[in-house]
Amino acid sequence: SCHSLVVEDIFLQREQNLGREGGREWLVYDWGCRYVSKAAAKPQVEFDYDGPSMKTTVPGPRSKELMKQLGQIQNTGAINFFCNYEESKGNYLVDVDGNRMLDIYTQISSIPIGYNHPALLKVMANPNNLSTFVNRPALGILPPENFPDKITESLLSVAPSGMTRVQTMSCGACSNENAYKAIFIWYRNKERGQNTPTNEELNTSMINQAPGCPELSILSFMGGFHGRTLGCLATTHSKAIHKLDIPSFDWPVAPFPRLQYPLDEFTRENAEEEARCLEEVEDLIVKWRQKGKPVAGIVIEPIQAEGGDNHASPDFFRRLRNIARKHGCAFHVDEVQTGGGGTGKFWAHEHWGMDDPADIVSFSKKLLSGGYYHKDELQPDKPYRIFNTWMGDPSKNLFLSEVLNVIRRENLLEEVTRSGKALLNGLYELQAQYPSILSRARGQGTFCAIDAFDDATRDRILLKARDKGVLLGGCGDRSIRFRPALVFKEYHVNLFLNIFNDVLAQHK
Amino acid sequence: SCHSLVVEDIFLQREQNLGREGGREWLVYDWGCRYVSKAAAKPQVEFDYDGPSMKTTVPGPRSKELMKQLGQIQNTGAINFFCNYEESKGNYLVDVDGNRMLDIYTQISSIPIGYNHPALLKVMANPNNLSTFVNRPALGILPPENFPDKITESLLSVAPSGMTRVQTMSCGACSNENAYKAIFIWYRNKERGQNTPTNEELNTSMINQAPGCPELSILSFMGGFHGRTLGCLATTHSKAIHKLDIPSFDWPVAPFPRLQYPLDEFTRENAEEEARCLEEVEDLIVKWRQKGKPVAGIVIEPIQAEGGDNHASPDFFRRLRNIARKHGCAFHVDEVQTGGGGTGKFWAHEHWGMDDPADIVSFSKKLLSGGYYHKDELQPDKPYRIFNTWMGDPSKNLFLSEVLNVIRRENLLEEVTRSGKALLNGLYELQAQYPSILSRARGQGTFCAIDAFDDATRDRILLKARDKGVLLGGCGDRSIRFRPALVFKEYHVNLFLNIFNDVLAQHK
Repeated sequence: SCHSLVVEDIFLQREQNLGREGGREWLVYDWGCRYVSKAAAKPQVEFDYDGPSMKTTVPGPRSKELMKQLGQIQNTGAINFFCNYEESKGNYLVDVDGNRMLDIYTQISSIPIGYNHPALLKVMANPNNLSTFVNRPALGILPPENFPDKITESLLSVAPSGMTRVQTMSCGACSNENAYKAIFIWYRNKERGQNTPTNEELNTSMINQAPGCPELSILSFMGGFHGRTLGCLATTHSKAIHKLDIPSFDWPVAPFPRLQYPLDEFTRENAEEEARCLEEVEDLIVKWRQKGKPVAGIVIEPIQAEGGDNHASPDFFRRLRNIARKHGCAFHVDEVQTGGGGTGKFWAHEHWGMDDPADIVSFSKKLLSGGYYHKDELQPDKPYRIFNTWMGDPSKNLFLSEVLNVIRRENLLEEVTRSGKALLNGLYELQAQYPSILSRARGQGTFCAIDAFDDATRDRILLKARDKGVLLGGCGDRSIRFRPALVFKEYHVNLFLNIFNDVLAQHK
Repeated sequence: SCHSLVVEDIFLQREQNLGREGGREWLVYDWGCRYVSKAAAKPQVEFDYDGPSMKTTVPGPRSKELMKQLGQIQNTGAINFFCNYEESKGNYLVDVDGNRMLDIYTQISSIPIGYNHPALLKVMANPNNLSTFVNRPALGILPPENFPDKITESLLSVAPSGMTRVQTMSCGACSNENAYKAIFIWYRNKERGQNTPTNEELNTSMINQAPGCPELSILSFMGGFHGRTLGCLATTHSKAIHKLDIPSFDWPVAPFPRLQYPLDEFTRENAEEEARCLEEVEDLIVKWRQKGKPVAGIVIEPIQAEGGDNHASPDFFRRLRNIARKHGCAFHVDEVQTGGGGTGKFWAHEHWGMDDPADIVSFSKKLLSGGYYHKDELQPDKPYRIFNTWMGDPSKNLFLSEVLNVIRRENLLEEVTRSGKALLNGLYELQAQYPSILSRARGQGTFCAIDAFDDATRDRILLKARDKGVLLGGCGDRSIRFRPALVFKEYHVNLFLNIFNDVLAQHK
């Protein structure tokens, strides 16, 4: 659930050489309107800018200066540029050189309702909220008085179907790590038939040995991304640079369907591909059980995000969920990147149309801090098994409550559906217009992607678009991913399509 | 680096039955002054209360009501009571039943300068800081303009000796997970002799197999605690309940010295014990190398905290650091609980008096968010190897800057040294007075502990003290740990000793 404008590449380190050294400093870019289908409408909201405004190539001189300064303290190879968050507003991110960019990547998909949203500034202005920011509690032992009400009105108000329990955590990786732990505990209690471990289990657990630390596994999918801590990393398979040199677990990795787009033109081929993957999932479950490393849980993203925006059909997920049920594995849907409304529904798994979509659903990013929902039976049987010092942050939950209010008040999920349709149609048109550059446009809501001819082309397009005032992200080996905030409207789509068309026209 | 008032117990679940059902509601407790040695002086600071004030037993009726409510959403077995953070001030935590308690545990050691410190409220009142709270950036790709300056003036101004680089993270577990990753990457690059991996390494890493995911190990110590995510958990060995049922790595676990206290009365015995442990460390390093799972790093706490406040001499750490150097293992000092001033120095390892104390030092808790310092050579060789979406939180760093200002302005490390001396002397006197109840008083600064006769005694004392207005923590199997804020002064010590004496007198 990660990544950046310029995709990481362990061999070439192209990001050092590409585009950053262009000399067009202080040149105001004229972002023309040559995209044919629609004119960009006027913005309706007072807290948004009316378009990009570029003064330098990006990164500009001030960003370069700061990179040098930070380079003495940290590896800065992934840094795109430095930002002026005071001046950033709505869908626009302003950098330290005064460049104002339409942000369609939003801090790796984690800014839900744009920059400096007035509703969130109001939360800060309320003196009743002060102490929530100043005193961070250890939520597991000493929660604030309003904690049950606050998570009821925020997190539980958007709980996935069938789930009435939520565990807060600080970030996406910790959410998945603890979700896996909850799965292992649940699985072993099932195996034991009760909750009381043997002395041998207790003693061996202290020195990392079985049976106390059993050889259970989590089945994940090639191309999946679930985080970068050691447990999460054992289920992440998007790029070698995440995993190289880090010890891991011998856990099974199933193929994720490689579908042909547009989905409705390849129904038969895609169904066959999905059937092949599902068959392999069952084979792996059996094989790993025989190896003495039973699959306690299956983890999957509704749309593989960091791995290249790979989709699968609702039917695939329904059948996968049944396989999990049949083999007694917990079904864990990782909505860290897909959750929070970007697909046009609050959870991407709602598109599957199921009453019982999962046993456990993790989140972070647009929800401003992490955690997971789970069914009653995955409740840890004892205190302190799922536990740490902070277990989330009530100040982030305060913001989340307000974000949810804004989503409801402004019908933002409908907006996303509308903008998403416009975006995807625009991408279809562009790939028809530039078939040698673009292909495989796909998406749900504004959670869209399109493939470039190859990685070098993709990276050039991303940098060119950035210099023209549009921030996009890469994913997979040659995809461009779109992750705008929920306040990204149709006129932003048109504004983007105009600029993108310019970029492609010049590229061609 | 964790834990609670009532220690977790997988077998008995005593916390359900002990003390919580007492019926003394709305009874104001008269906290007398029978402790002989010193009278409690008057508080000097306007933002502190002048003593505990108890209205009910704890948890009171309102807390119980809220526990029931939250119990429908989460496992509440670890919750002590619900808090009123608005009313809490300085060293005093106020609960939802109006009980005001002297807090000597401070959210598992994570509140550095007390509740609602005016300096931190001022940070909130400054409109220039608003956008830092409202817009959380993905620090690794789009840092704010002031990020280099801010971490220079905060984190780097307290950098451990020999370290000029710091990596921010969100919490303690993520800090250690990523520190381990940095160690593995550094170790493998050393083994390869350069930074370019083979194709076989790249391909095998994608499916969790060696050589891409090598069988490297981290050596840790029995009784150590380094977090609860799967990587951290493989180095945590304090209690079975943390580890049971969770798959782990076959990593070596060395004995941590079990010293006799007071340390200066058992110099010879303790030196022998330390020598025995160091010898075993070297044996394990050799053995694991022979097993094909070389030790890439050694991780240790300067004082084992969650595991029972176990100390070792500066000589032990100096010799251990040399062993690490000799065998080419990174030396990782986990200061998540010991860091931030509680021992009277900002870092506990400063007590060792070394110019080159470690290769990597992790922190969290009192530093308000997580991260680790490291030597230049542990810098990841490529971007995106140590990376995630948020990589910390600039709003926490804003508070940390101010916390460090307060520490300097008010000479809080001197205060801690002074209060710590008073506290430890008081504990010595009490263990002399109640030898059948207390033993092994020990500590550095206010980072102190004392053992009770057994776990049941310890738990009863903790609950009794709480009902009399003093919040303490348990650790190990029968220790009481003291983790006050840095604003805990000598008069707070005396106030505590008076109450504690009452508890012990009644217990006797």
